[in-house]
Amino acid sequence: MAISMYEASAPVFTRMIGNLRNMLVKADAHAKARGYEVDVLVESRLAPDMFPLRRQVQIASDAAKGSMARLAGRDVPSWDDTETTMAQLIERLDKTLEYLAGFSPDQVDGSEERQVVVKTRMRELRFTGLQYLQGFAVPNLYFHVVTSYNILRHNGVELGKMDFLGGT
Amino acid sequence: MAISMYEASAPVFTRMIGNLRNMLVKADAHAKARGYEVDVLVESRLAPDMFPLRRQVQIASDAAKGSMARLAGRDVPSWDDTETTMAQLIERLDKTLEYLAGFSPDQVDGSEERQVVVKTRMRELRFTGLQYLQGFAVPNLYFHVVTSYNILRHNGVELGKMDFLGGT
Repeated sequence: MAISMYEASAPVFTRMIGNLRNMLVKADAHAKARGYEVDVLVESRLAPDMFPLRRQVQIASDAAKGSMARLAGRDVPSWDDTETTMAQLIERLDKTLEYLAGFSPDQVDGSEERQVVVKTRMRELRFTGLQYLQGFAVPNLYFHVVTSYNILRHNGVELGKMDFLGGT
Repeated sequence: MAISMYEASAPVFTRMIGNLRNMLVKADAHAKARGYEVDVLVESRLAPDMFPLRRQVQIASDAAKGSMARLAGRDVPSWDDTETTMAQLIERLDKTLEYLAGFSPDQVDGSEERQVVVKTRMRELRFTGLQYLQGFAVPNLYFHVVTSYNILRHNGVELGKMDFLGGT
């Protein structure tokens, strides 16, 4: 017995995207309770040369959908990054959860050795499915979810570690 | 074929702790180049009720060593959290890397169904090895490594995504 590629991807991505969604809902409630425009948070960032919350959420969504598609050998769907409000970002994550739910274990299992090619601005990266999952897809998703959490915490939104870990 | 419990833990933890170590080395060089006391960074935090870098690094270290020990069915070694300088935090991570290197696949493989008990201040959490690894150990480690990265970036240390992903 061991961990299947499906178990190591779909449920992990689904939990993280769902937790990120719940954090945005809490951020929305916090802003309303404090009487400020919630969309201020959407443009908040931790450093001038880091992405704002909006891009962190879009990239987390892209990381989850792109990783599942690549592991399953499907084309990666391209979604325009047009969200400018918290409500739209929550919708984007709902759409992501719906997309993730469309994969079954038989589409992903056995992809350990499947070649995965990721095109970046600089070059093409080539991985086996397993290298891609553990060395790129999973850490990249965690990076953008934790950074979203940190942007919200830095701005006073009341979140705790369990909002991040959730559903364990 | 699938992913073994060892493959899903030791190399992932080792890469992340090694990357965190390298970030601290860069932070040290950055502070020296800018002419400020590097230990200021050690006490930096993103919100008044979040842990400073010092505790983020100690918890990342604890997460890595504790998770490996629990999956292998060993006692979790207790290390005092006495570090107060960047140099000492780097040493702590070196010690963590040494500890992680002491596990072999046969000690960890097959732990998917092993019962893992984690005692928190509030209660005892019980997991199977697989639930523990994916639902707690891995996300918790990423949380503290990414938050360390964000604390350093927020303070102007020149890091990029590859410093976090590293070694892929």
